[in-house]
Amino acid sequence: MKMGKKKVMLPAKEVDLATVKYQYEKIEAPHVTGFFLKLFVKVLESPFGSLIISHLKKENKTDEMLRNTVIPEPPMFKPEFPPQESEAGVVLLDEDGKPEERVALALKCLPDYDPSTYWNTDSSASFRYWKIRDYAHAYRSKLATPSIIAERFISAMEEFGNKKPPMPLLISYDPEHIRKQAAASTKRFEEGNPLSILDGIFMAIKDDIDCSPYPSNGGTTFFHEIRPVEKDAVSVSRLRCCGVILVGKANMHELGLGTTGNNPNYGTARNPHDPERYTGGSSSGPAAIVAAGLCSAALGTDGGGSVRIPSSLCGIVGLKSTYGRTDMAGAICDSGTVEIIGPITSTVEDAILVYATILGSSAAEKIALKPSAPCLPDLASHESSNALGLLKLGKYTEWFNDVFSTDISNKCEDVLNRLSETYGCKTAEIVIPELNEMRIAHIVSIGSESLCGLTPDFEDGKRVKFTHDTRTNLALFRSFRGSDYVAAQCLRRRIMHYHMEIFKEVDVIVTPTTGMTAPIIPPAALKFGETDLQVSANLMRFVIAANLLGFPAISVPVGYDKQGLPIGLQIIGRPWCEASILRLAAAIEELCTTPKKKPMQFYDMLKGN
Amino acid sequence: MKMGKKKVMLPAKEVDLATVKYQYEKIEAPHVTGFFLKLFVKVLESPFGSLIISHLKKENKTDEMLRNTVIPEPPMFKPEFPPQESEAGVVLLDEDGKPEERVALALKCLPDYDPSTYWNTDSSASFRYWKIRDYAHAYRSKLATPSIIAERFISAMEEFGNKKPPMPLLISYDPEHIRKQAAASTKRFEEGNPLSILDGIFMAIKDDIDCSPYPSNGGTTFFHEIRPVEKDAVSVSRLRCCGVILVGKANMHELGLGTTGNNPNYGTARNPHDPERYTGGSSSGPAAIVAAGLCSAALGTDGGGSVRIPSSLCGIVGLKSTYGRTDMAGAICDSGTVEIIGPITSTVEDAILVYATILGSSAAEKIALKPSAPCLPDLASHESSNALGLLKLGKYTEWFNDVFSTDISNKCEDVLNRLSETYGCKTAEIVIPELNEMRIAHIVSIGSESLCGLTPDFEDGKRVKFTHDTRTNLALFRSFRGSDYVAAQCLRRRIMHYHMEIFKEVDVIVTPTTGMTAPIIPPAALKFGETDLQVSANLMRFVIAANLLGFPAISVPVGYDKQGLPIGLQIIGRPWCEASILRLAAAIEELCTTPKKKPMQFYDMLKGN
Repeated sequence: MKMGKKKVMLPAKEVDLATVKYQYEKIEAPHVTGFFLKLFVKVLESPFGSLIISHLKKENKTDEMLRNTVIPEPPMFKPEFPPQESEAGVVLLDEDGKPEERVALALKCLPDYDPSTYWNTDSSASFRYWKIRDYAHAYRSKLATPSIIAERFISAMEEFGNKKPPMPLLISYDPEHIRKQAAASTKRFEEGNPLSILDGIFMAIKDDIDCSPYPSNGGTTFFHEIRPVEKDAVSVSRLRCCGVILVGKANMHELGLGTTGNNPNYGTARNPHDPERYTGGSSSGPAAIVAAGLCSAALGTDGGGSVRIPSSLCGIVGLKSTYGRTDMAGAICDSGTVEIIGPITSTVEDAILVYATILGSSAAEKIALKPSAPCLPDLASHESSNALGLLKLGKYTEWFNDVFSTDISNKCEDVLNRLSETYGCKTAEIVIPELNEMRIAHIVSIGSESLCGLTPDFEDGKRVKFTHDTRTNLALFRSFRGSDYVAAQCLRRRIMHYHMEIFKEVDVIVTPTTGMTAPIIPPAALKFGETDLQVSANLMRFVIAANLLGFPAISVPVGYDKQGLPIGLQIIGRPWCEASILRLAAAIEELCTTPKKKPMQFYDMLKGN
Repeated sequence: MKMGKKKVMLPAKEVDLATVKYQYEKIEAPHVTGFFLKLFVKVLESPFGSLIISHLKKENKTDEMLRNTVIPEPPMFKPEFPPQESEAGVVLLDEDGKPEERVALALKCLPDYDPSTYWNTDSSASFRYWKIRDYAHAYRSKLATPSIIAERFISAMEEFGNKKPPMPLLISYDPEHIRKQAAASTKRFEEGNPLSILDGIFMAIKDDIDCSPYPSNGGTTFFHEIRPVEKDAVSVSRLRCCGVILVGKANMHELGLGTTGNNPNYGTARNPHDPERYTGGSSSGPAAIVAAGLCSAALGTDGGGSVRIPSSLCGIVGLKSTYGRTDMAGAICDSGTVEIIGPITSTVEDAILVYATILGSSAAEKIALKPSAPCLPDLASHESSNALGLLKLGKYTEWFNDVFSTDISNKCEDVLNRLSETYGCKTAEIVIPELNEMRIAHIVSIGSESLCGLTPDFEDGKRVKFTHDTRTNLALFRSFRGSDYVAAQCLRRRIMHYHMEIFKEVDVIVTPTTGMTAPIIPPAALKFGETDLQVSANLMRFVIAANLLGFPAISVPVGYDKQGLPIGLQIIGRPWCEASILRLAAAIEELCTTPKKKPMQFYDMLKGN
C-alpha cells in the first residue's frame, strides 16, 4: 500500500484570499480516438486497468486531494443556500400554478413587440433569428400556420439527414406525430383559441428527457429496452399544456458523459456555423437544431455545462436554472445533485418564456431545498434599466483570461465595458480559490451518481453496448471510493463558502462560457468516438461552479472569433436569482450590436428558405 | 469482470406490505480474535485482501444490492423530514437560549421531588441509583459537598484501576482538575449560588468528544498527535456552563467502529453487572461509569447504536436524539449523516435534564434540516398520563422476537402489556420491509464517512497504529465505491418512506434494544482485539433505523435475563419528537417494578461505600 503524505487544509473561513494564486489547469490524459480508443478500453477494463487509472489520477492529483488531505468542512451533499435577499424590479411567478398562466405573466415582462421592425426588414439587413413572438405574430396574423411550418420542418429534416456529412439532429422523430400536433394547433388558431404564446412553437427535447411517444435513449442504442417511457417528463408536459409542438428527441453525447457531442451510435451532430466542427455537448442536437433555425427552442439537461457549452459554441442562449428549480421527474438522470433541465433558445426573451413555462420544483425538493419563489425581470417596466445599473459584476481576471484564444476574453471584456458605459454596471475584481478542487469534487460527484444508475445494466451484459468513450469514463468512476465521494462533498461546502462570500460583494459572476470555440471533429473519432480531456478541460473551465453549487447561469452570445466561430459569455447568479442573470443577459444581447452571422446551415422556417 | 443479473426494485410506494416476509439475518463472517486477527489483517491489507472482501460481500449480498439492483428512489443524503404535528402535553425549549434556562425548565417538567422517599430508606430496600436530584438535594441540604464526592470519586478510580481484571473506565483523567472543579462548585453552594440543578454533578465524556484540558483520542493511542483539542465541544461547554464536574474522557471501542467496547489500546471496559462480560459499545466507558454509580451521567456518541447498546447491556438509560438536534462541533466524527451526541444516565429523569442542557442544532443544520423546536414531556402536569394513554405503539412481532434468548422478547412484551393495562396504550402490529437493505445502507454510509476522515492519517504512516479490528473495518470500507454510497442513499429514501408511512399509524416503534444481553469477553481478544460480526449483528439488530433515518430513540432497562444480565427496551420516535419517547420511557421505568439488581461493581458515591 503506497503511503501518501498528509496535507491539512485551512478552514475555508480562514483562507486569506490575498494569498490565493490562480492555478492553470494541468490535465494529463491521453487523446485517444477511433481504433486506439477501442484498444485503450480493452486494457482499462482488464485487471491492468486500475494501474492506468491510478496513474492518471496521480497526475491529476485526485487521490492526493481526496485521500491525503484533511478537509476541515463537513460534507454538503446538495447545495444548501442561506436565505437570499429578493431581487429588485421583478415579477413573481407561482411555481405551483398553471404553466399557461406563468408564460402569460412572462409575456407581460417583455418589452412591447412591434411586428414592423421584424417583418418589414429587407433581406440585406443583418441576420437575426425568428423569435417565439415572431411565430406567434405570424400565426395570429395568418402569415403562417403551424401546419405550414410542420411541412417545412419535415422537409428540412429530410434535407439535413441527406447532407454530406450527415447532420443527425434528431434521433427519434415521427413526421406524422408532428403533423398531428401542428394540425391541432392550426385548428386552435382558426378557432381563435390558442393555448398560450407558445402554441404552435416548435421545440426539440434532448434524448435524455421523456417525451412520449418517443423512447428516451440518452444517446445510447439500448435504453429503450431497459427504461420504457410511459409519459412526458414533468417539464415536457408543461410545454405540451401550452400548445408547443414537440418535434422529437434530439441527439446528444451518450448519457451526457462528454462535452463535444460526439456520438458514434447515431452520428455526431455538427455545428451549424461550421459542419467540420463539434456543436459542444452534451446537448449537441438541441443546440444545433435551434442554431440552424429549425426550432425556436429545445430542452437540454445541464450537469456539467451541457446546456451552456453547446449554446456558446453554436451562438445561441442556454439557461441553467438553480438546482431544484426544475422538476427532474422523467429525465434519465433524475436524481443527481448537479443537474437541471434548461432551455436552449436563440434569444434571451425566448429563454424567459420557456423557463417560465417549465419551472417548478418537485415535492421532494420543496422539502429538502426550500426554494425561493421564482421570478422574472420586468423588462417592460421603466425601472428595469435602473435595476440593471445597480448590478455589480464580479470578474476573476486571471481565470477570465485563461482561454485558448484572446479573441474570447477580448470579446467578453468588450461587453463588460459596454455594460459599464451604457448602464453604469460596475465590475469588481474577485478571487475564487480552489478551482481545481472544484473540478475534482464535481467529477467525483457526477461520476459516482451516474455510475450508480448505470452499474446494474453495465454488469448485466450491457457493457459492450456502451460507447468506448462512456466505458472509459465508467472505468474512472468505478475507481472512486465511497469516502472519495464524501470528501468531494466536503470540498463542495468549502467552495460554496467562497462563492457565498463573493456574492456578498457582487450580484453576479461573469466569465467566458467556454475556454475555446467549437473544436474540429477528428475524422477518426466518428466511428468509435474519442476521449480528449484537454478539449473537455477547455470547454468545462468556467461552467462547473453552477453545477457543483447549484447556482443559476446563462450563456449569451457576444460575437465571433477570427475564424467566425461564436463566443459566449456566462453570467452566474446568486441561488434562486434567475431574474438578475436574465435581466443582464437581455441587456447584453441588446448591446452586442456586431452584426449577427447567419450560420452556414440555416433554414428560415417562417419565410420558407 | 463478473456479470451480475440485474434486479429491479418496485418503487417503495408500490410495495405491498402484505407480501413482505421477515428475513432472518444471515451474517457470513469469520469470528477472529487475538493472533489470528493480526494475521487476518495482514492478508486483508495485501493484494489478496480484495478477494476476501469480495467473498464476504458476496455472501452478505452487498454488491448484489448496491450494484446489481435498480433502486427507483433518488438518494436522500441526510434525513429529510416532512413537517410533523406537534406533540401533546409538552413544554417547549428554546434551543438558542441558555442551557441553564433550559435545564431549569426541564426541572419544572419533572414530578415533585420528595427527599424522604430517597434518603430515609433502609439498606434492605431494593437497589436504586442516586439521581441528579438526589445529589442536588444533598448539596443544598449540606449532606455532602462536591469536594467530598470528588475525593470519593478519585479513590474509587484508583480502586477500579487496581481491580483484577482492571476496569479502565477513563482513559484521560486528572484528579487535580476534578478537585479544582469540585472546589469551585462547593464554593458556589457555600455562597448559595449554584449555577443550576447540574452544579456539582459528576459526568464523564466519551473519548471522541472534546473536553479540555484532555486530549480526544477516540480510543486510539495517537489522535492527540494529529488532532489537538483547543476547547470543549459545544455540548460539553453547555454542561460546563451549568456547573457540571467533568471527570475525564471515558473509554470506548476504537473510533466507535465496534459494538462490544473491546479496546486493546487501553484495556477493555468491563460490565459492572459481570466483569467477564462486555459493556457493549462503542460508548463502553460512559455506560460502565454510570452503571457502576461513579457518575450521574456521561455523554456518548451514537452513529450505530453506540449510546443505546451499552446502556442496554449495562442496565441504564441511553438517549439518541434526532439527527441534528445536538451540535456535533467538537466531536471527532462531526460531519457524518448518522451520528449524534447523547446522554447516558441511570434514570429517565436524568436523561431529560442532560438532554435539555446539551441540545441545540448547529447553524448549518438549522439551514439544512429545519429542526422543529425541541420539547419535553410535562411529567409534572396531570395531563401527562392522558397524553400517555393516547400513544400508539408499533410492534413488528417477528423482528421483536428475533433475539438470542426469549428472556429478552418476553421481558419487553411484559412491559407492553403493563403499559396497556395501566395507561391504555394500544399496540399495533407493523411491518418494516427491507431490514437487510437498511443494514447495508447504514454500513456503507457510516463506513464511507468514517473512512473519509481517517484515510489521510492511515495513508500517512499511521496505519500500524490502528487496532486490527479497525483495520479490518477500514479494509471493508475501502471497497465501497462512490456509486455504492449513492445507492445506499437511494435505499435510505425508500426506508424513510416505509417508516414515515408507519408513523402515520403509530406514534412510536418499540423493539428490544439489542438481540442479546452482554456477551462474554474472550480472553484471547484482550490483547489484539477481535472481530465478530455475529455478535455485532445481534447487538445492532434493532438500532439502525434511528441512525440511518435520524429518528430519536431511547433504551430503557426493563429487567434481567436468567443470567441476571440487564435487558433494554428501545422506543423509536417520530423525527424531532423526543418528548413522546421520553414520556413513554419515564412511564416504563415506573412500571418496571422488578427489584433492581445492584451491579456487582457498584460504588455508592453519596453514602460513600
